[in-house]
Amino acid sequence: MDRTFSALADPTRREVLLRLKDEPGLSVSELARPFSQKLPGMMKHLDVLADAGLITRAKTGRTVSVHLVVGPMREAMEWLNRYERFWTVSIDRLVALVEEDGER
Amino acid sequence: MDRTFSALADPTRREVLLRLKDEPGLSVSELARPFSQKLPGMMKHLDVLADAGLITRAKTGRTVSVHLVVGPMREAMEWLNRYERFWTVSIDRLVALVEEDGER
Repeated sequence: MDRTFSALADPTRREVLLRLKDEPGLSVSELARPFSQKLPGMMKHLDVLADAGLITRAKTGRTVSVHLVVGPMREAMEWLNRYERFWTVSIDRLVALVEEDGER
Repeated sequence: MDRTFSALADPTRREVLLRLKDEPGLSVSELARPFSQKLPGMMKHLDVLADAGLITRAKTGRTVSVHLVVGPMREAMEWLNRYERFWTVSIDRLVALVEEDGER
């Protein structure tokens, strides 16, 4: 969980995950392109994502294609889910306040 | 978002958030106790959580009480939510595979 949240704490890495969601199997150079980022920089980000179990890499000839693994994100989501009842409570309170205000 | 995920990437900080969920308004020393952690260590963790907007602190006399703020967690959750359709797809695929296997 530490590694998942830590891997997600970077905008480039989050963007990579979003791109892989829509275009599974992108190559490392295709991933690097929109960030105008040097390949070694992108490789480091991909290492962090792979260590956290968020991606897998497969080599075909000279091309490395990257795929998303959603398991760890699901765990992170389940952790955050425990707070959901608080959001609901807050919204209920807000609705109550607005209604109260309307009755005045 | 960077700060939220980064703040969540530590087991002590996640545990603090869980405790505050069940016992809102705990004091800093009450929070430090179960971790057998020195007060300065806990203060640093609370600074990280406060910088990420995940807690607020209020001083009453000599006691600092800590409260949870769920907004940033909600945003993090919404980000993770984009991947939900992948989990569903994966489960559908799994069900299909199991059924296929049963038909053999």
